[in-house]
Amino acid sequence: MTSVPGFSAADHAFMARALQLAERGLNSTSPNPRVGCVIARNGRVVGEGWHERAGEPHAEVHALAAAAAGDPEAARGADVYVTLEPCAHYGRTPPCADALVAAGVARVVAAMQDPDPRVAGRGLERLAAAGIRTECGLLADAARELNIGFVSRLTCGRPWLRAKLAASLDGRTALADGASQWITGAAARADGQHWRARACAILSASGTVLRDDPQLSVRLGDAGQTGQRQPLKVIVDSRLRTPPAARLFEQGRVLIVGAGGDPARAAALAARGAEVLDLPGSDGRVDLPALLGELARRGVNEVHVEAGRVLIGSLLAAGLVDELLMYFAPCLLGDSAQGMFALPPLVSLAQRQALKIRDWRIIGDDLRVIARCA
Amino acid sequence: MTSVPGFSAADHAFMARALQLAERGLNSTSPNPRVGCVIARNGRVVGEGWHERAGEPHAEVHALAAAAAGDPEAARGADVYVTLEPCAHYGRTPPCADALVAAGVARVVAAMQDPDPRVAGRGLERLAAAGIRTECGLLADAARELNIGFVSRLTCGRPWLRAKLAASLDGRTALADGASQWITGAAARADGQHWRARACAILSASGTVLRDDPQLSVRLGDAGQTGQRQPLKVIVDSRLRTPPAARLFEQGRVLIVGAGGDPARAAALAARGAEVLDLPGSDGRVDLPALLGELARRGVNEVHVEAGRVLIGSLLAAGLVDELLMYFAPCLLGDSAQGMFALPPLVSLAQRQALKIRDWRIIGDDLRVIARCA
Repeated sequence: MTSVPGFSAADHAFMARALQLAERGLNSTSPNPRVGCVIARNGRVVGEGWHERAGEPHAEVHALAAAAAGDPEAARGADVYVTLEPCAHYGRTPPCADALVAAGVARVVAAMQDPDPRVAGRGLERLAAAGIRTECGLLADAARELNIGFVSRLTCGRPWLRAKLAASLDGRTALADGASQWITGAAARADGQHWRARACAILSASGTVLRDDPQLSVRLGDAGQTGQRQPLKVIVDSRLRTPPAARLFEQGRVLIVGAGGDPARAAALAARGAEVLDLPGSDGRVDLPALLGELARRGVNEVHVEAGRVLIGSLLAAGLVDELLMYFAPCLLGDSAQGMFALPPLVSLAQRQALKIRDWRIIGDDLRVIARCA
Repeated sequence: MTSVPGFSAADHAFMARALQLAERGLNSTSPNPRVGCVIARNGRVVGEGWHERAGEPHAEVHALAAAAAGDPEAARGADVYVTLEPCAHYGRTPPCADALVAAGVARVVAAMQDPDPRVAGRGLERLAAAGIRTECGLLADAARELNIGFVSRLTCGRPWLRAKLAASLDGRTALADGASQWITGAAARADGQHWRARACAILSASGTVLRDDPQLSVRLGDAGQTGQRQPLKVIVDSRLRTPPAARLFEQGRVLIVGAGGDPARAAALAARGAEVLDLPGSDGRVDLPALLGELARRGVNEVHVEAGRVLIGSLLAAGLVDELLMYFAPCLLGDSAQGMFALPPLVSLAQRQALKIRDWRIIGDDLRVIARCA
């Protein structure tokens, strides 16, 4: 991250701290964004806070309360660093802009504007109208990355879709007969749990359920488990083949998405506690763009896909995949083993799905590559 | 590289310098090893040298001459750092051990012993017998890596075999129809040229020649071209299908390896300047282990493979691949495109080819992964 002209080193440090605080809400704030706030006076932090959970106070309110705990006037004349433009409307909580005005702060620096095009800039305007100096754009890239799903939902009307795959270095996910357990090591699997945990929904397909009977739940181990929210489980299942006895029903909410499936099966799944949604597309299969639109309407910011080559291939072919989270195990399975993506055959190399590699690192003995669809 | 007990920081620095010098011979010393030498007195370098080409002086002789150029007695009482045990036998040049004794050096530190089991340790013994203090093992891993092919040839009787592949991130090298040009970018292709250049032989197959008509020559561009040795081109070609008009004949030596091919074709290839070798295996195809043994006998230290999925798969299945040099382009081609390795179908995951990832980095926009067969 290069420094932003017009902002001091101290500004950068306080905003970086605010971003760290925001990250504490990584697994809990949805459908709200992750937001952190630092209040500094004379170069010293006098209060900090972060948003933890929808319906609870915003980061700014926590930070103001922390500052006031030591000295009721601590925030007067202070500089406030917040990773997202303060809200100016009444939601489940009163507007943060009003609280900052009431506290008498001198300056508010936001990392980025509210991505909602109907709101963007109004919070800062409200502060400016009250005589507070406002600035925006400090560490904006990092702030946008932190809320990439929230931004996608508000600007594109669909969640950020991240597909996770595990394969051998020659791009094979399973033997020809489907055997795939433990291709990657324990460290990579634990890493994958953290990506599940930050998502609002885990998307899979009935084929995967029938083959592997996965739980599709978040298991972070001792440290992260307490109070961990379980993402909504979404199963693409045109013909409603998901068995009501599947392990994924043991915990959390389940949404089964069919396409004209048997009503008796739908009733059996509903009796098991699932919501069953019928979203047929023109080809008789589930309408995937409509599904993502529906998830966005329900406040889903990030979707984590764990499925086989067919669903991931369909999502890719439909242009719905934003990011690939790929774990490559240090082994080769050879050409007879199963590939990663069922895509329509290409006629020319120009038709290939272009990616941009964002991150590459070793986790345990495996190589993790994060790439975005270009 | 951690420090080696018993060696000082200055020892490490001088040996590291000797290794840097040795690397200057990366593309030219074969069949000899790459060797560098530093002579230091009172903590100051008084002479340095490296071996450049077989038949020319060894690193120690160059370093002694450099030291003597300023002061004929410069090496007397000096410490000598050499990346490989000095030779003690008459080859194309007289023994370096004798030259070091004659120069009156006080101490010789070798990074590693001569890997030839018939020689190992004798050079150091000769020095010790003359009253010179000798030590061995400083930065030994780096020294062994530098001459990994030489070590393989002398200890295993076969060259180090490095297979280069370029694929999409989903492990596809070409479209179903074979179209594969320019999957990876210019920076990755230039990097691949450096790996070609250090090899003693480039191994390919007639199928690749017929499909792509590659030159299989080293093209380093302006900087590296001068005096660049062209590796021997070796074509696995059971039925002698290589066309005498192929571009690979335009430059350098060519060895065509058949398995009972048509004598008239063999004669045509010989007339084109190629050596034709008949090495049939029990399956009627080229006996690959015998080929590698033959290349070792000819002094080939490192073999660079650029071939299709069939030859690389056969080499892998025969346990002859030591290292994979893989370039992954930031794109997906999908499951209908060609895979990387034609391997026999696996019955269980336990049969997979295990690898150890040695290096991973971005080159241009591509990901380069170097892995070794475990």
